[in-house]
Amino acid sequence: MCSSKTSNSMLSAITRTTIRKNAVAIINLISNALTHSLQSGTPHHHGMGALRLPSLTSLSSAAAAAAPRYYFYRQLCLPFRSVSAAKFSVQSSTFEKELEPTSQKPRLQPKKDRVITPRSQDFNAWYLDIIANAELADYGPVRGTMVIRPYGYAIWEAIQDYLNVKFKETGHSNMYFPQFIPYSFIEKEASHVEGFSPELALVTVGGGKELEEKLVVRPTSETIVNHMFTQWIHSYRDLPLMINQWANVTRWEMRTKPFVRTLEFLWQEGHTAHASPEEAEKEALQMIDVYKNFAYEQAAIPVVVGRKSKVETFAGASKTYTIEAMMGDRKALQAGTSHNLGQNFSRAFGTQFMDENGERQHAWQTSWAISTRFIGGIIMTHGDDAGLMLPPNLAPIQSKSYFLTSGLCQVIVVPIWKKADDKAGVLDAASSVKETLQAAGIRVKCDDAEQRTPGWKFNFWEMKGVPLRIEIGPRDVSNRSVVVCRRDIPGKQGKVFGISMESSTLVAYVKGKLDEVQSSLLESAKSFRDGNIVDVTSYSELKEAIAQGKWARGPWSASDNEEMKVKEETGATIRCFPFEQPEGAKKCLMTGNPADEVAIFAKSY
Amino acid sequence: MCSSKTSNSMLSAITRTTIRKNAVAIINLISNALTHSLQSGTPHHHGMGALRLPSLTSLSSAAAAAAPRYYFYRQLCLPFRSVSAAKFSVQSSTFEKELEPTSQKPRLQPKKDRVITPRSQDFNAWYLDIIANAELADYGPVRGTMVIRPYGYAIWEAIQDYLNVKFKETGHSNMYFPQFIPYSFIEKEASHVEGFSPELALVTVGGGKELEEKLVVRPTSETIVNHMFTQWIHSYRDLPLMINQWANVTRWEMRTKPFVRTLEFLWQEGHTAHASPEEAEKEALQMIDVYKNFAYEQAAIPVVVGRKSKVETFAGASKTYTIEAMMGDRKALQAGTSHNLGQNFSRAFGTQFMDENGERQHAWQTSWAISTRFIGGIIMTHGDDAGLMLPPNLAPIQSKSYFLTSGLCQVIVVPIWKKADDKAGVLDAASSVKETLQAAGIRVKCDDAEQRTPGWKFNFWEMKGVPLRIEIGPRDVSNRSVVVCRRDIPGKQGKVFGISMESSTLVAYVKGKLDEVQSSLLESAKSFRDGNIVDVTSYSELKEAIAQGKWARGPWSASDNEEMKVKEETGATIRCFPFEQPEGAKKCLMTGNPADEVAIFAKSY
Repeated sequence: MCSSKTSNSMLSAITRTTIRKNAVAIINLISNALTHSLQSGTPHHHGMGALRLPSLTSLSSAAAAAAPRYYFYRQLCLPFRSVSAAKFSVQSSTFEKELEPTSQKPRLQPKKDRVITPRSQDFNAWYLDIIANAELADYGPVRGTMVIRPYGYAIWEAIQDYLNVKFKETGHSNMYFPQFIPYSFIEKEASHVEGFSPELALVTVGGGKELEEKLVVRPTSETIVNHMFTQWIHSYRDLPLMINQWANVTRWEMRTKPFVRTLEFLWQEGHTAHASPEEAEKEALQMIDVYKNFAYEQAAIPVVVGRKSKVETFAGASKTYTIEAMMGDRKALQAGTSHNLGQNFSRAFGTQFMDENGERQHAWQTSWAISTRFIGGIIMTHGDDAGLMLPPNLAPIQSKSYFLTSGLCQVIVVPIWKKADDKAGVLDAASSVKETLQAAGIRVKCDDAEQRTPGWKFNFWEMKGVPLRIEIGPRDVSNRSVVVCRRDIPGKQGKVFGISMESSTLVAYVKGKLDEVQSSLLESAKSFRDGNIVDVTSYSELKEAIAQGKWARGPWSASDNEEMKVKEETGATIRCFPFEQPEGAKKCLMTGNPADEVAIFAKSY
Repeated sequence: MCSSKTSNSMLSAITRTTIRKNAVAIINLISNALTHSLQSGTPHHHGMGALRLPSLTSLSSAAAAAAPRYYFYRQLCLPFRSVSAAKFSVQSSTFEKELEPTSQKPRLQPKKDRVITPRSQDFNAWYLDIIANAELADYGPVRGTMVIRPYGYAIWEAIQDYLNVKFKETGHSNMYFPQFIPYSFIEKEASHVEGFSPELALVTVGGGKELEEKLVVRPTSETIVNHMFTQWIHSYRDLPLMINQWANVTRWEMRTKPFVRTLEFLWQEGHTAHASPEEAEKEALQMIDVYKNFAYEQAAIPVVVGRKSKVETFAGASKTYTIEAMMGDRKALQAGTSHNLGQNFSRAFGTQFMDENGERQHAWQTSWAISTRFIGGIIMTHGDDAGLMLPPNLAPIQSKSYFLTSGLCQVIVVPIWKKADDKAGVLDAASSVKETLQAAGIRVKCDDAEQRTPGWKFNFWEMKGVPLRIEIGPRDVSNRSVVVCRRDIPGKQGKVFGISMESSTLVAYVKGKLDEVQSSLLESAKSFRDGNIVDVTSYSELKEAIAQGKWARGPWSASDNEEMKVKEETGATIRCFPFEQPEGAKKCLMTGNPADEVAIFAKSY
């Protein structure tokens, strides 16, 4: 984020936070304060032209060249070959350069052996190397855009499949709103927010003609949703109205990072309208709970659930609930939010209903979203120097055929042979093991490609994050057994020899191991998280914790201004007031006044 | 379409056809002819300002007022109430008026009894009334855009679920490309096609600043796909590369119609690259076959599969395969296309690979798409004056919970009682029938709402197109039986009394009936289609058939110019050279020369 300071820095920072984080219209109830701050604030966005975007590859850098090869092939056989899976276009665009077409580059370049930057050495470079080498995404030709490649998209499909069912089970219907929003809709909401336009992409020409009114490419859909809701909601009988859409959205972000922050991204946005404030609150809480369960049970990410501070609340919301995840570099990632919008948008748009007493009321509303950013969260929570690490439960719920091409598998079977005599037996055994597991509902692939060595395959599938590898060599065939290797425990420690190929033994063993990997990923993320949250009772303790890169948790009842002071002095923001609160009397770490709650402070993405 | 004529009308019409129908860049191999025609042609798009868009509702028109109520409630009970489900905003915007915000309209207007225009009276008004009353879609605030409402979106989800599995089974991976395409990409392909820009929406402002290069909001993705393919394809080992994306696309259409032609629509676009022309051809044929099977087996639409004429071939393709459906007004709807692109795009973008002999070759490519337009095809194939009619097989393949909210059901159970004494027994029976069917995997809902009469419910669920209705009244309860009514056979004829509630009898009976409805829908669409295709041997016969609103099928080996003459004189185009060809020697209907194939001519959407 921008670190420059302004004369009226606190209010301005509040504004920037709400605008940048939420990118929606600021509603009337806070518009006075905002107008004041914006008039006196510095336009941060325009002074950042010289910043560089991270480049996805760093092959030529000294750091990368010096990095050790991240994984050594086990003793068994064959020469080591590092992963050469990714063919990533190097891109080092700047803000000023809107486009970086790469179609003119030399093609047909030979694949090169690749090394990835160790995570401990440069977390950001490591992250980008994983994305390149696991073939999750590539840069699009327009600055800040991203092509989501099949393996990355398969993760998104897994997220979609799980949430889609949960949304429907909780009574929501999918639908689709147009992405072009009349500029007047945005102005209506944001008329006092001069600072909002920097995030908008505008269509000004359509059908070869200058448009009378320019169109906003949706950054979020509250405005158009309310415009339609006013036509569908008449009486309390039309409520609750509970819908969701899966869509692309566009925010003209200044600093982009694949998955975490891109100019265009994919998300779902839920929008609901209710006849009472209690119902809206219940809905907002229900949906953050759906997100939390997804994070814990599927993605093995031990998010902290809580309520945002007033400063960090979604612009337009009465309350914002959030799930906050600790990444491998200990920065916080806001991984999903659910907003109780109160009557703020319904008042701005006139979304009214006739209640049971025949009186008009404004609807109470919620909205909630999770985006492709979550994929970045999975990478940065579980990945290591060998690559991605995928939780076994993260999978499309659909039929077996669903994951055949690019889908996420739980088990990779690698047949190993040197002598031609051994080949047929090994391949037969591998194929039969695969069939056995598949029949038991385990998502499994067999990598029997002959042009790659087993060592290459081990590295490749570790890079892809497959939870279990089964190795089958000639000796295993004669013993009627296999070797099972856990992705999350490197080397010999994660390897068990002599597991019987006999169907009932093997299936039970593999299912048990998958469960173990799933809980182990969650447990290790949990202990990493808990080991990096420091309970603080004073501002100096908070500063020390943040300076060490940790999260600080402490009682807080101070003002918005004091919250902003913390941000300016430490770079940390209140991530949330967690739902789980310690008991007993507390004193505000900043003021010493009584405090009802502890807050968590951290630096964030 | 525009009917004005120009001095150089034929070539101009060719150009318009290819541009308007396909909306992609014209590649070099036909650019000379196009350049010529465009330079001399009239810019049609700019003279159409006075045309009106169809209005979705016609409540106030004399025609609608005079229309009979479309369905009368059976003798059993309760006063008639017509469907008041839809609350549609009247919109009658023109081209010149870019925006038609309706948020200022009076809200909380009372629901009104609605009648729909009879199909025989005004097909277009009937179509729009169905969309409104079945709550499939609504107009968006920006001219030509559409909000897809939950029930309409559920049909799209059913289409997606079926095709998604088929795409994966045939080896394709889903992924996602950015929607913003540098204008230079389009220019590269379309530099000689001045007429193309009328279909583009351009982003010229991003982040509050005028962009150095304007961005096209994707109308289709061949350009950006090839830009990325050049970075991923190096050797024959990288081929075939077979991907698909589900996405929104934008085309600045002059005349719009919900589902059939909208400014923004949803589709899937498959893109593949192969190492040989044979493989590309095989792929293009495979995918049109996937579409055909979907149309026949799921949507019960007996499409004609064939090859487009040169004039109608996708701009950039060597061959275009199509599925053409006959709508209820006997116009043709191009419901899906699959293109063998040859090396046309790979040459334009330099998409090359090293073959097995170490030589560079341009890749052979295909692309193929089906869009939300298909939903319009389902409405216009099966719908009647009582509303939508949905084929029973058209359903999401996912778990039961998947269709709980807005999903498409196969059976609606309506409990009927007058006396309070009967209520509990009837509701119990209805609920148990529902459970029985659900347990057997049938998608069933029970409409036990007390504030609606059975008559209202019958009309409502017929409007929604549910294939079977089960009625249960007090007498049925005492007989332990139910009444089963087919949606596709109105009145008493489609009704069978006394079907036993006993689980095995009922389940078998309902499954059998669903199958019957599915085949019956297909058969009746087939006989309607076949009854409206006339075999012609001369141009005068062709003209007569077209004048009668029918499709004309006859031998054709005449020139492009003669094809365009037919279009200008009759309004009909060659829909395709069908794969199914009559045997024996044929003579061209226009020239009398020998002809290898028959073509089908028809007016189209």
